[in-house]
Amino acid sequence: MKKLLLALAALPLLSSAAVSQETRSIRQRAPELRDEALYRDTVAWNITEGLTTEVGARLAGTEAEERARTWAVRTLTGLGFSNVRVETFDMPVWVRGEERAEIVSPFPQNLVVTALGNSGATPARGITAEVVAFETVEDLERAPDENVRGRIVFVSHAMRATQDGSGYGYFGRARRDGPSIASRKGAAAIVIRSIGTDYHRNPHTGVQTWAEGVRPIPAGALSIPDAEQLQRIFVHAGDSRIRMRLVLTPRNVGTRQSGNVIAEVPGRDPSAGIVLVGCHLDSWDLGTGAVDDAAGCGIVTAAAHYIRRAGQPLRTIRIVWFGAEEVGLLGGYDYFRRHRGDNHAVVAESDFGADRVWQFKSRLNPAARPVVDAIARLLFPLGIVRGSVTEASGSDIFPLVSSGVPTFELSQDGTRYFDLHHTPDDTLDKIDPAQLRQNVAAWTAMLAVAAEAPGNFGPVAPVQQ
Amino acid sequence: MKKLLLALAALPLLSSAAVSQETRSIRQRAPELRDEALYRDTVAWNITEGLTTEVGARLAGTEAEERARTWAVRTLTGLGFSNVRVETFDMPVWVRGEERAEIVSPFPQNLVVTALGNSGATPARGITAEVVAFETVEDLERAPDENVRGRIVFVSHAMRATQDGSGYGYFGRARRDGPSIASRKGAAAIVIRSIGTDYHRNPHTGVQTWAEGVRPIPAGALSIPDAEQLQRIFVHAGDSRIRMRLVLTPRNVGTRQSGNVIAEVPGRDPSAGIVLVGCHLDSWDLGTGAVDDAAGCGIVTAAAHYIRRAGQPLRTIRIVWFGAEEVGLLGGYDYFRRHRGDNHAVVAESDFGADRVWQFKSRLNPAARPVVDAIARLLFPLGIVRGSVTEASGSDIFPLVSSGVPTFELSQDGTRYFDLHHTPDDTLDKIDPAQLRQNVAAWTAMLAVAAEAPGNFGPVAPVQQ
Repeated sequence: MKKLLLALAALPLLSSAAVSQETRSIRQRAPELRDEALYRDTVAWNITEGLTTEVGARLAGTEAEERARTWAVRTLTGLGFSNVRVETFDMPVWVRGEERAEIVSPFPQNLVVTALGNSGATPARGITAEVVAFETVEDLERAPDENVRGRIVFVSHAMRATQDGSGYGYFGRARRDGPSIASRKGAAAIVIRSIGTDYHRNPHTGVQTWAEGVRPIPAGALSIPDAEQLQRIFVHAGDSRIRMRLVLTPRNVGTRQSGNVIAEVPGRDPSAGIVLVGCHLDSWDLGTGAVDDAAGCGIVTAAAHYIRRAGQPLRTIRIVWFGAEEVGLLGGYDYFRRHRGDNHAVVAESDFGADRVWQFKSRLNPAARPVVDAIARLLFPLGIVRGSVTEASGSDIFPLVSSGVPTFELSQDGTRYFDLHHTPDDTLDKIDPAQLRQNVAAWTAMLAVAAEAPGNFGPVAPVQQ
Repeated sequence: MKKLLLALAALPLLSSAAVSQETRSIRQRAPELRDEALYRDTVAWNITEGLTTEVGARLAGTEAEERARTWAVRTLTGLGFSNVRVETFDMPVWVRGEERAEIVSPFPQNLVVTALGNSGATPARGITAEVVAFETVEDLERAPDENVRGRIVFVSHAMRATQDGSGYGYFGRARRDGPSIASRKGAAAIVIRSIGTDYHRNPHTGVQTWAEGVRPIPAGALSIPDAEQLQRIFVHAGDSRIRMRLVLTPRNVGTRQSGNVIAEVPGRDPSAGIVLVGCHLDSWDLGTGAVDDAAGCGIVTAAAHYIRRAGQPLRTIRIVWFGAEEVGLLGGYDYFRRHRGDNHAVVAESDFGADRVWQFKSRLNPAARPVVDAIARLLFPLGIVRGSVTEASGSDIFPLVSSGVPTFELSQDGTRYFDLHHTPDDTLDKIDPAQLRQNVAAWTAMLAVAAEAPGNFGPVAPVQQ
């Protein structure tokens, strides 16, 4: 009974608090908006769950990505955002075909392979050739052409997990550059150890672009257990030559349409500039693109939603769900082409999964450092440390960042990101709802400051290429 | 310097110990044989690594299983075992074809599926039908035929991990009985949630046998993320019907040969009976059969190796690497048919992965309880608890056990077994060498007692069917 009385007594207090909230600014309410997101957000989950369930995989330029745009427009409109629109652009589309690999001799067995983006095709029956192994891309580069010519190149170097994902830059060379190097040396095909950190039979795809003048060859990734199996086969085979049959039949289907989906929370002062928060709508074709990057769209959209609900911010918040990120930042470049002249106060993107934000980075004019300090104070309670104030970036926003637009970066924990990224295993069950909400809380806090802080965040020097 | 002197001083002591070891019995040396295995065994690893690398997947009755028998004979002979031989038998062989599933409407997308053993085939282009979902096999059984006729049945019930693997019995019904029940009700096909506990896009295959007079229909398993995706699609679809296209083109290729590979450590007294230690050589076709059951063959063979090296035991130890276990214990039944009259003192099998033994069970005559006590005392230091003394079994030895042959069971921790079992993910990287060695230590200790203890372990009553 005592408890009930206490509860009743508390009611008027809660009501006055609610009334007073309405008269306080978004900036003043930042801690409570943040905590509301941290403990109660369902918007990010619903977007992640809805998009991955009702659309699933959505390869750039395909009919699935088009359905995803329709889904996005309906969802963003339903949440009450303004100026919801699609900006389309044309792009070349490459689609996956059959994919099989087998060791023909000396130890016949199947290996699990998937084609890398823009891979050339084998005949339908495949090709059979001797495998030549290299531990690194550099070893492949140094090899005499006659060691490579007519053979299937295998590059085995192994990326390990890092919190900041920094291994992807170096080890990713096997995927980005390996195929062109192998082709130049006359290789029949190339298979790399997947650029990933898991131990499942799910290979990692990803884009690679043929260097100028290079003839496309079949280019695939073996799952990590299969790559290690092939390394063991080399050890057991001794002097025997290892022959592989490889079937990869992807094809280029010509020009198709992709597009960016844009929505806004209009600001009180159009001259105060735009805070752009981005993610990408397309995914690779193997999984349902839950961590890459439905979750990112859920996170930035939920954060913008909490600011919108709290009142009209000083600055316009522009949400961009970019198209065709995976195949070469095509949406990011299209946006840059159209909107580079817009007054972007600051830009940020969520595209590294759904695990907790652990670090806050920025790239503003040093005079705007008090804004960084204010955001950092709001992020400490979420367990987020301060990172660089001179380096920050994102995927689709890269052209804007490079041109000198001020940038925030809420770095997610990437320890398990490359277990999932670009594999069939990138599915909803990998999303931890509590960690997802921590992301929304961090973005809400950042937006509450970024959309309200007076003054400019720039100018910032363009990035040296 | 002091250390060196001490080391030199210790040498004569070590030498006398070595000399005295040779005159002590295998039974007396059991603790040191056990610990040698625990810390230093490489035999089990080398068998597991060698078989999975040089043969890989080895589906019963195929040319790969035949190569595995050749590999087994060479390996067992090389280890110095006696009477190494193959006992062949004929069997019908079913092989996998193409496998694809896609939701056609309302949310088009691909799902990952694999055929269950003995699945019927769709036409090459597949079949397209409405999906009808059931939470359990019992719900399917109770459903009116008209709700099932012409449709694709989906059974979604979810097995959770248990240490003793006991969930497999009940939940496995969806695989064992679901297809026949669905066919009887006129279903076009059936897809079940994989009988597994992981969250990867790797479906679990496994045998199912059509009930008498039942027409085979296409029968597959969805990976667990895909099964949960389909459940979500039902929630999102509301009143819309869900249509699936299913392509499964396995075929029966007729009669082929399988076989059991047998090796022995001959005992001092042929009348003392045989201690049979078993495992199975065949594997499912999706993985390389590392945990199921190359590791089991490594474990029992390594243990027999340490006894052989320690001297001639009282009883003959017979190692059997059974063929065609996965498809219905065919090797176990063939062995029983040929050898039921042999004097089996006691039998045991390792076929539940490579994680630590946690429990020791037995089924001996109560008068032989001192033997159980002696083994249990040797197992306690390995962290192994005592289990039932009236229930113990194994896979291929089931016919022997059922007929009343005394049995030991060293129960492995099955918590993560059904993450891997019957999936593409059953590969060498899942084997923990330290846990594998603990298995060898436990089996070595058990064999040191079982091969030397005087008297009979039986009689034991046949198992009530």
